[in-house]
Amino acid sequence: MEKEDKKFFMAKAITLAKENVQSVHGGPFGAVVVKDGEIVGVGRNRVTVDNDPTAHAEIIAIRDAAQKLGTFDLSGCQIYSSCEPCPMCLGAIYWARFDKLYYAATKDDAAKADFDDSFIYKEFALPKEERSILSVQMMRESAVKVFDEWIKTENKIPY
Amino acid sequence: MEKEDKKFFMAKAITLAKENVQSVHGGPFGAVVVKDGEIVGVGRNRVTVDNDPTAHAEIIAIRDAAQKLGTFDLSGCQIYSSCEPCPMCLGAIYWARFDKLYYAATKDDAAKADFDDSFIYKEFALPKEERSILSVQMMRESAVKVFDEWIKTENKIPY
Repeated sequence: MEKEDKKFFMAKAITLAKENVQSVHGGPFGAVVVKDGEIVGVGRNRVTVDNDPTAHAEIIAIRDAAQKLGTFDLSGCQIYSSCEPCPMCLGAIYWARFDKLYYAATKDDAAKADFDDSFIYKEFALPKEERSILSVQMMRESAVKVFDEWIKTENKIPY
Repeated sequence: MEKEDKKFFMAKAITLAKENVQSVHGGPFGAVVVKDGEIVGVGRNRVTVDNDPTAHAEIIAIRDAAQKLGTFDLSGCQIYSSCEPCPMCLGAIYWARFDKLYYAATKDDAAKADFDDSFIYKEFALPKEERSILSVQMMRESAVKVFDEWIKTENKIPY
């Protein structure tokens, strides 16, 4: 039974991806968030239709679930994605504190369809100075002062 | 002159972070997006105030700039962040195709203020089976069919 549920949730994620291809509303990716056997968030890629480079299926499903559940902490939830998450979405999955990630196609399958996931994973593994987007550090001292202030703040909401 | 501009933009990102600590509206992080010497997007962390685990300063600044410029492609832009981006935000910076990233505090500074950036970077470097969030592959064949359909679609908007 549990195994059938997993197939149902993944089929839903894949259907969202498929609908996106048919409607030309963004890339071929879908995701659902599940808690206690119920779907609590859905997302399909909306990068091109919304002019939003962050609008991947997983990001949208996470935001949807967090709104519905009224919390930024999705512990106890699972995410089903039609494709192995890119680094942005994998990072989001950590911040959201999911219990488990299910995925269908791989990042190499995505690369074959001309999506950069594999390339970005490779960039992450390089030392900063060898990456294609140059990064420069500056004014560290001023920024660390803000962290010091945060550490001393008593009524903050940590996360 | 150019050097002064960079300091101005980073000071703005750090000010956004500082204001966030004072207003208790989210974590101590700010970011700005710059194009042709003008600020075209701003963001401050809103995770706790919006119940959105993806609402990091950089993500919000990217979405803001993309809306203002009417494109998902931020080539020709630079991003200034008060802190070294976490993996989610670094992924977003790649998808947005920034020319250059400027940052102030490091991920280890963030860790000292109890933010998980360093931990998540370490998880990325581990083989999947050793990561703290378990990932399981299933139904790859069905998902790859959607990619095949995407590849054949003629009126798609690639990105």
